[in-house]
Amino acid sequence: MKTILSLGAGRSSAVLISYLLQQAKENGWKILVGDLSVDAARERVGSSPAGEAIRFDVNHEEESIKSIALADVVISLLPAHFHPMVAKYCLALGKHLLTASYVSEEMNALHEDARAKGLLFLNECGLDPGIDHMSAMQVIDKIKQDGGKLTSFESFTGGLIAPETDPGNPWRYKFTWNSRNVVMAGQSTAKYIQEGEYKYIPYQQLFKRITPVNVPGYGEYEGYANRDSLKYIDTYKLTGIKTMLRGTLRNKGFCAAWDIFVQLGCCDDTYLMEGVNTMTHRSFINSFVDGDRRISLEEKLIKSFSLKSDGPEMERLRWSGLFDDELVGLNSGTPAQILEYILNKKWKLKAGDNDFIVMWHRFLYDKGNHQHEIQASLIARGEDVINTAMAKTVGLPLGIAAKLLLQGKIQSRGVVIPVFSEFYTPILQELKTLGVELTESEMN
Amino acid sequence: MKTILSLGAGRSSAVLISYLLQQAKENGWKILVGDLSVDAARERVGSSPAGEAIRFDVNHEEESIKSIALADVVISLLPAHFHPMVAKYCLALGKHLLTASYVSEEMNALHEDARAKGLLFLNECGLDPGIDHMSAMQVIDKIKQDGGKLTSFESFTGGLIAPETDPGNPWRYKFTWNSRNVVMAGQSTAKYIQEGEYKYIPYQQLFKRITPVNVPGYGEYEGYANRDSLKYIDTYKLTGIKTMLRGTLRNKGFCAAWDIFVQLGCCDDTYLMEGVNTMTHRSFINSFVDGDRRISLEEKLIKSFSLKSDGPEMERLRWSGLFDDELVGLNSGTPAQILEYILNKKWKLKAGDNDFIVMWHRFLYDKGNHQHEIQASLIARGEDVINTAMAKTVGLPLGIAAKLLLQGKIQSRGVVIPVFSEFYTPILQELKTLGVELTESEMN
Repeated sequence: MKTILSLGAGRSSAVLISYLLQQAKENGWKILVGDLSVDAARERVGSSPAGEAIRFDVNHEEESIKSIALADVVISLLPAHFHPMVAKYCLALGKHLLTASYVSEEMNALHEDARAKGLLFLNECGLDPGIDHMSAMQVIDKIKQDGGKLTSFESFTGGLIAPETDPGNPWRYKFTWNSRNVVMAGQSTAKYIQEGEYKYIPYQQLFKRITPVNVPGYGEYEGYANRDSLKYIDTYKLTGIKTMLRGTLRNKGFCAAWDIFVQLGCCDDTYLMEGVNTMTHRSFINSFVDGDRRISLEEKLIKSFSLKSDGPEMERLRWSGLFDDELVGLNSGTPAQILEYILNKKWKLKAGDNDFIVMWHRFLYDKGNHQHEIQASLIARGEDVINTAMAKTVGLPLGIAAKLLLQGKIQSRGVVIPVFSEFYTPILQELKTLGVELTESEMN
Repeated sequence: MKTILSLGAGRSSAVLISYLLQQAKENGWKILVGDLSVDAARERVGSSPAGEAIRFDVNHEEESIKSIALADVVISLLPAHFHPMVAKYCLALGKHLLTASYVSEEMNALHEDARAKGLLFLNECGLDPGIDHMSAMQVIDKIKQDGGKLTSFESFTGGLIAPETDPGNPWRYKFTWNSRNVVMAGQSTAKYIQEGEYKYIPYQQLFKRITPVNVPGYGEYEGYANRDSLKYIDTYKLTGIKTMLRGTLRNKGFCAAWDIFVQLGCCDDTYLMEGVNTMTHRSFINSFVDGDRRISLEEKLIKSFSLKSDGPEMERLRWSGLFDDELVGLNSGTPAQILEYILNKKWKLKAGDNDFIVMWHRFLYDKGNHQHEIQASLIARGEDVINTAMAKTVGLPLGIAAKLLLQGKIQSRGVVIPVFSEFYTPILQELKTLGVELTESEMN
């Protein structure tokens, strides 16, 4: 019996595992769900006869090898730094591996070995990276087939909250995926190309150098650049392209307020702060401004960053409780860990909250001596705090890819990302039937 | 015959080696000068019968061990990351080691082993760190002995240029020591304590959060905080002190202009830039601003950083040639390497230039229900581009320490820094006879 081992049974795995259990039932397959907590795995499997919960500890080599040996395909939703370890087990045991994470150097180094063994190590097959690659490549390949030459590609994706969720929240944001990743975002220099010039944005400029993005039918957003847009010039086969920029989308005003954290140094993860056990939200922020006691913390921020006392940045900081004398509630931590902990007090999804994904691409291309423009966008809305849009758009592409692979419909082998038609055509097609659809429009 | 092995024969070693050769002549010792280039070592030794030039390659273990075996004391002016390797050779061979560099974790780990073998591994015995520690501890110990309680210690040191040097240079700065260290300065968060509150300054705020410093008789300077002032609370035995801040001194206006490089990301050393072989000074800076071609590079900087077109920051950037279409002249490099290379075109010391060191301490202490204040300052002026104030103030403390050690006047063993009277009393005393003197004044 064909078997898929899905690793990681946190809340974000719910949609993927439901999909896999359904496919298993229809195709006579078996789904193993592995997690450090067997209870968490059991909760995901529920009463499905096609599923089985097992304990999985990636650091326990013998146990990991036993579990992976049972599978034909492994899907890993574990934190990204565990993937290379899982990949090595898969290589030794001759198993395919699918992840939604960026290809690391360690993963990339396994390409030839995986290919030689006839294994697919598919990465970047979630939402962003994932659906962004697939939806972009579908348009890019079509432009090329029609004789057009792409001159510019810009792409932004954001995991936000639905308009009706938490209406008093001025950030229009909550943590809908890994909160640590949000706090740590952007700490390495962003690289892209604009009108033929290489451009670099350091962390201290990232949330200032924003791109306004108007998503037809959904209004105005703002985007900041992702880490490395340059490496996708090769991957997308766009040598010579003049502009290439991938980024993250936020609601308007988010970046200017987040930039206060960046400028203060609140997202630093390189040292442990002193006196955390007695630290309050207010004294946390106060650690990052000068110590002149004649001036209040609020006044110092207003002066340092040229803010208005009742302006949008101060409103967001106030709403997040950062000027409150409330104890943080940790005994030790880096600035980034403490900020994440404070923000989670207000930014955790609650019953009734729905998340909301917005993806937007703009393609400029030359054809017949004219410049043409296509914009494409995708909106996904969560159903509840388990079946989030994020869990759906990250999990379903992985689930569909696993199905296609077991059905013998995927020929690619080695370390790859889903930029080929054999991935994007069936995956985008099936996502559409599941309510996740890209809308394209030719602009004038 | 007692032998000192001095490692590193660059220009900055000239004063140290002259001093050692003179002492060797008077005391019947021998001085070995080791460098990758025997010619450089020969130039330092000159015609002195007490000296001998040898080839020394720290990465060549066998050769290094042979050379170190000949010595009683090793002085290392090599780049700081080589010190732990030299220290391990010294430990194995039972030799004392002196450096002017900060104690690294690797060095610190050798403390017990060095002590057990009766060896002194003296570090931070140059200018800053070095003379700053010694001159501070001399005052601190005196305050304590007189029954005072220190509540605040602030200390700033800068290696600048003499007032008459390069009068058209608006930065009032040149590279008088390691230019790479200047470009990389401040990249880890600065930590200090101010009026009992722990404070943290990230890189992006460091050159904005400056302290005005008035050095009696020499005018106004500005200081930015050094990496970690907190660790010296223990070292200086100042538990409970309310304010402790160590920093670097610059001429007024330097920090605001340098901050433009910091904000743009020009000091980043973590990635190689694209197209360096055809890069000009202007296109280097242009890589760090957005690509709107309707606006000039100068206008973008003026707008982004709220500068004035003829203001002091733009004047400094213009003077450094950063808007010129001159080729950089490198084939590859990180932003930090390229910036260093461009700045060196104007900031290298030239014949006739004199460097200029300014050190300033302020001590606040309580005694007899009153608060008292002492300020102390030290000024050193270079004689020429070889006998710089920097070479003198870094080299002489090392040379004097080596002499004291060979004369049996130093009892400390293990990994230490010169915060004890057996170091600072004779070293400061002899520096005074060599023209390097701290001036103290009790303030009202």
